[in-house]
Amino acid sequence: MRREPPTARELLLDAARYLFWEKGYAATGVAELLHRAGVNSGSFYHVFASKEALLLAVLDNYLEGLAPAVLQPAFARSRDHIERIFAILEGYRGSLLATGCQYGCPIGRLALEIEAENLPVHQRIAANFTAWTTAVRGCLEAARHRLPLQCDLDALATFVLTTMEGGVMQARSFRRMEPFDQSVVQLRNYFTYLLDQRAGSITRRKRRQR
Amino acid sequence: MRREPPTARELLLDAARYLFWEKGYAATGVAELLHRAGVNSGSFYHVFASKEALLLAVLDNYLEGLAPAVLQPAFARSRDHIERIFAILEGYRGSLLATGCQYGCPIGRLALEIEAENLPVHQRIAANFTAWTTAVRGCLEAARHRLPLQCDLDALATFVLTTMEGGVMQARSFRRMEPFDQSVVQLRNYFTYLLDQRAGSITRRKRRQR
Repeated sequence: MRREPPTARELLLDAARYLFWEKGYAATGVAELLHRAGVNSGSFYHVFASKEALLLAVLDNYLEGLAPAVLQPAFARSRDHIERIFAILEGYRGSLLATGCQYGCPIGRLALEIEAENLPVHQRIAANFTAWTTAVRGCLEAARHRLPLQCDLDALATFVLTTMEGGVMQARSFRRMEPFDQSVVQLRNYFTYLLDQRAGSITRRKRRQR
Repeated sequence: MRREPPTARELLLDAARYLFWEKGYAATGVAELLHRAGVNSGSFYHVFASKEALLLAVLDNYLEGLAPAVLQPAFARSRDHIERIFAILEGYRGSLLATGCQYGCPIGRLALEIEAENLPVHQRIAANFTAWTTAVRGCLEAARHRLPLQCDLDALATFVLTTMEGGVMQARSFRRMEPFDQSVVQLRNYFTYLLDQRAGSITRRKRRQR
């Protein structure tokens, strides 16, 4: 079977994904995108109305890629739902390690770079964040019987994303894994407490019932 | 007493602080900086060799401003060292609230925007992060007798910064306080656990001694 050659759209998405994280959105010119993609200006404007339209497509593309690129490889590493959450974080650790701490989360980078007024872009960034935390929330839901009854699963899922993004950010500026690793260890410590709390309350209830 | 008029350097620093967070570093042109500062090109290049030299000065300026602008107002709100940490976070909450969730931490924004290869800039960003976590670590150190003996204060201080930065990032894209607030509540929950753990171990030790 012969593979179809990539379309101009695919070439441009690849180039944009690379350049928007490598240089940032504002710092990437259309000429540079065309050069990297090996696509001419006519083809670009045939597919995308503007650089911003390309950015929106990149964000849709990340959203589509979340399950195959981030979640499925992590979920394949463990059947334990809490461990799956830490496997997702381990995936980001791998990206940081492989790039000398330069590459973390492209969505987080755009969340802070793109002007706050640009609502269409921020809505898509938020959609990526929501998809990520929804996946983590799914793991928490599956492990609900091991977590304290009053545990706010939405807030906890958000906190996992917070840990990843804040850790990646510091690792990037320090060029060291340590801030990321320290943050994940603290989150792990927090999870251990939550799991112990529920386990403890079950033990205490059983003791009372005896 | 008559106040001296601001110098070109001060005017440029003010303009750069505003524009680098409002638009980002790459998206801000020198012409725009001059216009906002009300300074001509000759004066600019007399004071700063380049836009990057101005960025370095802005980062030094944030570092100098950390104590008076961030720490002292927070520390004035409580004498309790753990509450002082949450008062710092409350300060960021205030900035988010006052700006419709647009303005969080200018250092975090630059940490993710500036090219990873630009080491002089990232070293100064890292210096800002270090000063912040050192201040939080100081609070933790002062409250050490209330925290578990094995508690890693450096990691915990890093985790507080992680919480702030990750929460601010999500609040910006969602245009809602909720992700920030949820993250701080989870961090508070974690601190409650750490404080209870130490308090519990002291109570148990006292009981054994009776």
